[in-house]
Amino acid sequence: MSYSIPLEAFVAARERIAPYIRHTPMLPMPLVHRDVHPRIHFKLENMQVSGSFKARGVFNTLLQLDPSQRQRGVITASGGNHGLALAYAANRLDVPAIVYLPERASEDRVMRIARYGAKVIKHGEAWDDANARALEHAAAEGLAYVPAFDGVSVVEGQGTVGLEMLEDLPDMDCLLVAVGGGGLIAGASAAIRQKKPGVTIIGVEPVGAPSMSKSLAAGCRTGVQQVRTIADTLAPRSVSDLTFGVTRQYVDTVHLIDDRQMVQAMRWLWAECNQIVEPAGAAVVAALLDGGVPISKYECPVALICGGNAAADCVFASYQQAADMLMGIN
Amino acid sequence: MSYSIPLEAFVAARERIAPYIRHTPMLPMPLVHRDVHPRIHFKLENMQVSGSFKARGVFNTLLQLDPSQRQRGVITASGGNHGLALAYAANRLDVPAIVYLPERASEDRVMRIARYGAKVIKHGEAWDDANARALEHAAAEGLAYVPAFDGVSVVEGQGTVGLEMLEDLPDMDCLLVAVGGGGLIAGASAAIRQKKPGVTIIGVEPVGAPSMSKSLAAGCRTGVQQVRTIADTLAPRSVSDLTFGVTRQYVDTVHLIDDRQMVQAMRWLWAECNQIVEPAGAAVVAALLDGGVPISKYECPVALICGGNAAADCVFASYQQAADMLMGIN
Repeated sequence: MSYSIPLEAFVAARERIAPYIRHTPMLPMPLVHRDVHPRIHFKLENMQVSGSFKARGVFNTLLQLDPSQRQRGVITASGGNHGLALAYAANRLDVPAIVYLPERASEDRVMRIARYGAKVIKHGEAWDDANARALEHAAAEGLAYVPAFDGVSVVEGQGTVGLEMLEDLPDMDCLLVAVGGGGLIAGASAAIRQKKPGVTIIGVEPVGAPSMSKSLAAGCRTGVQQVRTIADTLAPRSVSDLTFGVTRQYVDTVHLIDDRQMVQAMRWLWAECNQIVEPAGAAVVAALLDGGVPISKYECPVALICGGNAAADCVFASYQQAADMLMGIN
Repeated sequence: MSYSIPLEAFVAARERIAPYIRHTPMLPMPLVHRDVHPRIHFKLENMQVSGSFKARGVFNTLLQLDPSQRQRGVITASGGNHGLALAYAANRLDVPAIVYLPERASEDRVMRIARYGAKVIKHGEAWDDANARALEHAAAEGLAYVPAFDGVSVVEGQGTVGLEMLEDLPDMDCLLVAVGGGGLIAGASAAIRQKKPGVTIIGVEPVGAPSMSKSLAAGCRTGVQQVRTIADTLAPRSVSDLTFGVTRQYVDTVHLIDDRQMVQAMRWLWAECNQIVEPAGAAVVAALLDGGVPISKYECPVALICGGNAAADCVFASYQQAADMLMGIN
């Protein structure tokens, strides 16, 4: 089946969500170390409201709900970032929200979601288990279910980042973007390729959750039995027909990286640009450092840092201890 | 004694250093939480090369050394960020460099400096002790000493951030900026006030290292016996005649904050914009959250996040452990 989302839909989504999201920075990288492409730019969606690109798709969806739906409330399941985005947007738009998370979701994520006023329910081993329960809950209580990636309004929202990048860097000729459920790569690639057909789009997926790679190789949507990666926000057992259908039209290749490469990339991003991001956010940097992605031929490549919600509480805890000590509190 | 640095000197410095530094982002803040000024912008110098604004003054100084000075090498003493900036710039310009640090400088800082190829020597309790030794070393070996704040070329370099902010946000009417040795506030305030006299400049200083506040109150440069703060990069025992002289011409007030407020501000910056910064970088946010700084009357206030080199290795260590476990390595 073929899916198409016209450029106008992305333009309309961008206008719709503009008052609520950040136009995030595009960081050039004059580097001392010569281990990546010298003209690489980073698009910093880790600085997006709620800490990831997910706010784009969520706002685009919530802003199109009718008043009675808004009043009853919204519900979703999330590896973390989509839940944060829903909680943030629901708070901003004054809509009640429930977020299902898999049992192993980090406490940092749970606390952030709760801080925005959403109800958090933990269920199941992977995102898919939590999602099945969230769908049942939505049906039982008549709540609007907001998909994490498998929805046209969500993909349209994520695609707005593509238009933003082309506006800031019209010479962009190559984009590296991480793949989880595929909403980001589907939206970004469809928006960019319709606006500037010559841009090469390269996906980056964890070797422990390779549903898009497997689907592209098989020529049809193919799930994986078990996901096994620290990049919990890139770890559904399967992409969707929609995201697969759009991705295979516009994406040139998907490159696999492993967990240790992502940690190495996290350290690199901190050393080179003082950005702490989650493993998923560093996946594109892992691909750059890996060297297996042939980007040297491009003049103006961009790596999209998709999210920054790392478990970083330990940083503050150690400073708190030092502050308490200096201020004479034990 | 009166000091004046003409606007043209800042303009020339900006042109000189442009190829080597980042034009850092100016982040607007559509916030869910209403605990700070709704139209506040953050200037993110934590994303500057080497992790702080210090790269500006260092490049401006090194680029004006003659070839024989460059060949012999440069030396400095630093609470951390100036040393990092010197090591980074020396690496970039192929100049040998030595950096003195106080004994209690964090391992993270020492390693980063060493990674850029500079020689690190630890000495003394505070920056002032390390600095005295660095000056002796410079004289003994004929090395060019690069001051951390007490130098006209350094202050001119730091001031370039003021021009950058006015260019990105011409409506800026108030700036909050942290005070350590005073190089940043002197340069930024002199550049901004000569270009746009109506901008209010508010300094923020740790209560445990209040040399600028004390000097302004006394009407002459006044040191403190002992510094006691987690903001090690804001902790010299005294500002300089130069930085005090310029600051008192252009700065409206200096606000004091304590260590626990800085840690609270670090957490806030992480929750609201996914930026992990050192205590000094969060000082201006501490002042915003404190509420004691009357900025509500301004239309377009800016808080300058001066540096981001926090001790954050624990973040990567915990992810490394998870990655090793998932990949079956013990």
